[in-house]
Amino acid sequence: MDSNHKKPLLIKVHPNDNVEVVVSPEGVLAGTVIYDNLTAIEDIPESHKIALIDFKAGDKIIRYDKIIGYANEPIPKGSWIDEHKLTLPVAPPLEELPVATKVPDPLPPLEGYTFLGYPNPDGSVGTKNMLGITTSVQCVEGILNIAVERIKKDLMPKYPNVDGLMPINHSYGCGVAIDAPEAKVPIRSLRNLATHPNFGGELLIIGLGCEKLMPEKLFPDIKEENVIILQNELGFNNMINRILEKAEEILIRLNKRVRKVCPVSELVVGLQCGGSDAFSGITANPAIGYAADLLVRCGATVMFSEVTEVRDGVHMITPRTINEEVGQKLKDEMAWYDNYLDDGSVDRAANTTPGNKQGGLANIVEKSLGSIVKSGTSAIVEVISPGEKPTKKGLIYAATPASDFVCGTCQLASGMTVQVFSTGRGTMYGLAMAPVIKVSSRTELVNKWKDLIDINAGKIATGESTIEEVGQEIFDFILEIASGTKKVWADHWGIENAICLFNPAPIT
Amino acid sequence: MDSNHKKPLLIKVHPNDNVEVVVSPEGVLAGTVIYDNLTAIEDIPESHKIALIDFKAGDKIIRYDKIIGYANEPIPKGSWIDEHKLTLPVAPPLEELPVATKVPDPLPPLEGYTFLGYPNPDGSVGTKNMLGITTSVQCVEGILNIAVERIKKDLMPKYPNVDGLMPINHSYGCGVAIDAPEAKVPIRSLRNLATHPNFGGELLIIGLGCEKLMPEKLFPDIKEENVIILQNELGFNNMINRILEKAEEILIRLNKRVRKVCPVSELVVGLQCGGSDAFSGITANPAIGYAADLLVRCGATVMFSEVTEVRDGVHMITPRTINEEVGQKLKDEMAWYDNYLDDGSVDRAANTTPGNKQGGLANIVEKSLGSIVKSGTSAIVEVISPGEKPTKKGLIYAATPASDFVCGTCQLASGMTVQVFSTGRGTMYGLAMAPVIKVSSRTELVNKWKDLIDINAGKIATGESTIEEVGQEIFDFILEIASGTKKVWADHWGIENAICLFNPAPIT
Ligand SMILES: [Ca+2]
Ligand SMILES: [Ca+2]
Ligand SMILES: [Ca+2]
Ligand SMILES: [Ca+2]
Ligand SMILES: [Ca+2]
Repeated sequence: MDSNHKKPLLIKVHPNDNVEVVVSPEGVLAGTVIYDNLTAIEDIPESHKIALIDFKAGDKIIRYDKIIGYANEPIPKGSWIDEHKLTLPVAPPLEELPVATKVPDPLPPLEGYTFLGYPNPDGSVGTKNMLGITTSVQCVEGILNIAVERIKKDLMPKYPNVDGLMPINHSYGCGVAIDAPEAKVPIRSLRNLATHPNFGGELLIIGLGCEKLMPEKLFPDIKEENVIILQNELGFNNMINRILEKAEEILIRLNKRVRKVCPVSELVVGLQCGGSDAFSGITANPAIGYAADLLVRCGATVMFSEVTEVRDGVHMITPRTINEEVGQKLKDEMAWYDNYLDDGSVDRAANTTPGNKQGGLANIVEKSLGSIVKSGTSAIVEVISPGEKPTKKGLIYAATPASDFVCGTCQLASGMTVQVFSTGRGTMYGLAMAPVIKVSSRTELVNKWKDLIDINAGKIATGESTIEEVGQEIFDFILEIASGTKKVWADHWGIENAICLFNPAPIT
Repeated sequence: MDSNHKKPLLIKVHPNDNVEVVVSPEGVLAGTVIYDNLTAIEDIPESHKIALIDFKAGDKIIRYDKIIGYANEPIPKGSWIDEHKLTLPVAPPLEELPVATKVPDPLPPLEGYTFLGYPNPDGSVGTKNMLGITTSVQCVEGILNIAVERIKKDLMPKYPNVDGLMPINHSYGCGVAIDAPEAKVPIRSLRNLATHPNFGGELLIIGLGCEKLMPEKLFPDIKEENVIILQNELGFNNMINRILEKAEEILIRLNKRVRKVCPVSELVVGLQCGGSDAFSGITANPAIGYAADLLVRCGATVMFSEVTEVRDGVHMITPRTINEEVGQKLKDEMAWYDNYLDDGSVDRAANTTPGNKQGGLANIVEKSLGSIVKSGTSAIVEVISPGEKPTKKGLIYAATPASDFVCGTCQLASGMTVQVFSTGRGTMYGLAMAPVIKVSSRTELVNKWKDLIDINAGKIATGESTIEEVGQEIFDFILEIASGTKKVWADHWGIENAICLFNPAPIT
């Protein structure tokens, strides 16, 4: 016991909350006097919750002004409320949820913000100028990877205006139930990845020739010049040479492109979190939410995702859907995922990780409430299924899995050109196809990973910055990153996570 | 019409068959007199079937002395029996199947055959001497890949006795329902991959620190020295340096290893087919079956797999299971897969590809009958679930998906050190972790892909070689490849397909 410990820092999100979160990295020791009427009665680690009142068994535990659980035993004031002390509430029943009942008024437009992008023939705008090569089946990956090494070594140096090379390798395409109802998810994802805005309107598909997902199944009107079928080639060297020739044709065109001033309304920003902790919901994610509002005010497209991290807070966002139809689509996506998890004999509670729990997130409800704030305050104008492209600008709910790799891949398929990614425990996540801005929920993580984290939202917890200040910083940084005038750390080092298609259908 | 066409070559598998398969690469033209009493009445492409009799609607169409379908219209003698002219029979009901009723007598032992392998502390024997690095979660892949490039460039040249470097990257580990009943499949697969016989008994796992699949979940007794947790490292360079240091420690030990003479009973050979055609079942697969018998006679472990390609011929192999228990496990695995496909609203007919059909395989029954012959004639001594390690030597049924990438990964997890892979349409498939011998079902493919196909079984169709001769050639080649005295084409070029874990559980 050490009651002479320096005054610890705690944070409360809403006046109605009956818990607070420990901000001090060293935690709080038993016996520490926190306020005049609150003393810690046991050691409590950083980012974990302290009881502000005496809870009886069954009492509501409130954070974010919402019930995050019920005390499953008496919890005296000053205790550490760890994950074992509360019971998970049931998920909000979908049928009864009010939709479009509290549609926010449009936020005041922000005019005049621009970035330097690569406009494409189809009207989209890229943030990178990349050679994309898509495979229709994993069979061809071994050959493509050898060709890619050759392109990097022999061709790329000749075309300095091209930012990079992206082989879209994946395990779909054959040995899968291609006519299963849910096969549409990986197929449309792959179709949309192949035509990503950062590929400059160029299309190149490498196929084998006997796969289920033939290139024409991806693009019924595909031109011969956009496809290489390896079974048509005479041996190894011809395969490599054909890919190199075609790649060089495209590189010559890409190399002539230059960045142009574009309105921020042409940006498509994806939001995600990974390795979350109890700070994520009070520092990084609210700041991202503030940046999301700024982007929406500029007319940009902003996508938030991660179904299992929205499910328990879905009642907070259905009222924000712009109309009945969008609200219903949101419920349908939640119901689809409930059923998908149920088929595997699990539910949304399967989302939380050991790291989340170590980071003070007691359960999926607490995690969800912190995750949803990334969406800011504007109306949800469209809900899209995994890998679909939005048809509207503004705030979009892209219903993807929460898995960082799968969410990232789905958001790329939806046309994302910059991702903002918050992390508490810390991940080095990066994507080759679009820059990923990493926002830390804690200052400690930034101190440890100076050369991996782009933005420190931990300053909010310590009172050094406001949510608005960090939100503005994120917004400004997005424009620099999108313009190529700054680089995220992941791109600086070349940290790239593989594409991971969401395939809810069986394999054969 | 051209009845002066040179005498076409056709092949019949069993005297009871009422169809034959066209062997001539140019096919058979309408009007061609094939035998005194058989004239083609329409053009029939290579590897497709001709009707030997007049079929009435509903008549049985027989190949391999088995019903491959029922005529769904009258089919006159001399017609092309394409996939649309027959109806799929129902799959053999599992309950009624006789098990262990025709257990083959043990084949006469073959003594004295050896290969040069790398014996491991656990008693297994490798065919390569590789540095394996396993990830516990995809989060760390971006860092590991950068370290791998550095190891290849800076370290590998110093340790010339080490054959290669294998990062086991995958999309499992987090963002998955780790407590779902079927999560055991990817977890045990990864555990067994990490300790593959070609990794010399060395273990190195790179983890993040907050993932669901923490290294201790893979190996409860894992030593600290076998694990690097990236969240414990201060920034990018420390992460890379830690991996490099640990890699070099292992490389120093691996570099001291030398190949030793080992009995063939220490080999673990996996059998697979991909891009099959109607020749696969009469050339490549029977020759592989002959080689399988030779291996079993030497006491080796031989695995055949691909549930959806066994399901329709399962009644041919349940009698060969060595006892009731093994027979029941075989039925259980079939039932598990029936149910898995049914959950996705498909069945085993989802297996066949456009390429199979172009290659003359009318349906999954015909494909299965041709696929199963890879197993040879010996008793099935054990049935294992996907990614399990066999506990017996001899012929094993490893119940994996048929997807080339997933089957290959599961067989590697089961300890496979050489794979024999038959192909008809042609695939360039290769694995970094174990050599893949590619056997072509057609001479035409070998002529086209001289530098990708290792063995030509097409000679059997043209009468230039017997099944036994090609089978012996495969067996001899396996021993050379396992000894490192010859290289398969895929290893010569460095053609490597990615690891693809089978995850039948949901992601979150
Ligand atoms: Ca998340
Ligand atoms: Ca995530
Ligand atoms: Ca096969
Ligand atoms: Ca079901
Ligand atoms: Ca296969």
